[in-house]
Amino acid sequence: MSTEAVNPNYGCLYGIGVGPGDPELVTIKAQRVLASVPIICAPHADTSRDSYALSIARRFIDTERQELLRFGFPTDDAEAASRVWETAAESLAERLMERQDVAFITEGDPMLFSTFSYVLESIRTNHPDIAVEIIPGVSSVMAAAARASLPLVTHGQRLAILPAVYGIDDLREAIANYDTIVLMKVNRVLLDALANLESLGLAGKGIYVRRATTESEQVVQDLHQLTEEDLDYFSLLIIKR
Amino acid sequence: MSTEAVNPNYGCLYGIGVGPGDPELVTIKAQRVLASVPIICAPHADTSRDSYALSIARRFIDTERQELLRFGFPTDDAEAASRVWETAAESLAERLMERQDVAFITEGDPMLFSTFSYVLESIRTNHPDIAVEIIPGVSSVMAAAARASLPLVTHGQRLAILPAVYGIDDLREAIANYDTIVLMKVNRVLLDALANLESLGLAGKGIYVRRATTESEQVVQDLHQLTEEDLDYFSLLIIKR
Repeated sequence: MSTEAVNPNYGCLYGIGVGPGDPELVTIKAQRVLASVPIICAPHADTSRDSYALSIARRFIDTERQELLRFGFPTDDAEAASRVWETAAESLAERLMERQDVAFITEGDPMLFSTFSYVLESIRTNHPDIAVEIIPGVSSVMAAAARASLPLVTHGQRLAILPAVYGIDDLREAIANYDTIVLMKVNRVLLDALANLESLGLAGKGIYVRRATTESEQVVQDLHQLTEEDLDYFSLLIIKR
Repeated sequence: MSTEAVNPNYGCLYGIGVGPGDPELVTIKAQRVLASVPIICAPHADTSRDSYALSIARRFIDTERQELLRFGFPTDDAEAASRVWETAAESLAERLMERQDVAFITEGDPMLFSTFSYVLESIRTNHPDIAVEIIPGVSSVMAAAARASLPLVTHGQRLAILPAVYGIDDLREAIANYDTIVLMKVNRVLLDALANLESLGLAGKGIYVRRATTESEQVVQDLHQLTEEDLDYFSLLIIKR
């Protein structure tokens, strides 16, 4: 956290986690900073016109007074996404070097599977003299556990959080060594995951949670009830041995 | 999340995560509920007179108007702690059955290594007709990553969160299969962890974070600089391969 090299004439880049979905799960600090910065940058997936983070933060922003920058990014190609974010970071850097503070909003937390990490890396590498402050948020992992009323881990237990890209061998390893496994963004591979759970003797041990704490929330304990329509980018599966 | 059996004449038990330390990292919802309930229950370790959760939440509570219940619990004996919490849960249940809402506060998030899980289990088992609402909070894991400016995981990566109880074999397994490992509450075993990191070829890959986002925060990159005095129950180690 060295700030020695920061240029005091530049604005500050805020990486703000706006939580899992319910606008009331935004922190007091995020609310304060969102209301005070002149520029807010909201990412959205290329496949959608909506930014999930923006839908959460909108009530804290006044677009009459504050400028909104939007960037679309590819969700299925990490390298292409990285290039998009490098370009986005440069346009944010221009504003920051004009003394303007910029808030980059992200659903959940900025340090856990967030596009903010690309922007952060680019700014750190190319503009190390720009101040950055990261405001952590409530992760969808904790929100899903809360809504499922299922403690993730207690004293002495182990938790593994895996991305959507995994196979049965990964799951077998995780189940052998961890008490609880969270599979993130299970939309495309849910059916594989279900078949894998059964063949690993874990049928009935998974809970699917989609858009936790929002109006379209679903908490599904009997995974066979899930249909194609229930699947969602903002979903996860909690597996407890 | 069945609420069919809930008795509407009983109060609601709120499990509230008050975040990692900075009172500004409390959510808007937690703030609202904390201000509205008649009874607040704060846990604290037997080894200390202070409740960390209460130190965070104090500014949102009015003890002239609200009753504060405090429970001490043993930190080094899970079974003894479980018995303490069963007793605590019963005294909370008495209040809840008198139509009084109770907020049980916990630092970080209530579903991740929190004493709230014991109370939750006890209430669910012995009083399934008492309504429970869990309000997720910002975890110290995310707060530590934010303060260290270190993304935990990005697209396609894996995260393991391990408790204080682990050895070199556990660490070897985790490092083989995960991109990032978080060791929680490393106070007692930090020196072992350091030696293990070196023998696993991970010297210089760990960052120690203590009481993230508080006035006594420490972010230490050169772990050899740590002294006995720096160690703390509210600390963790982030290891990135």
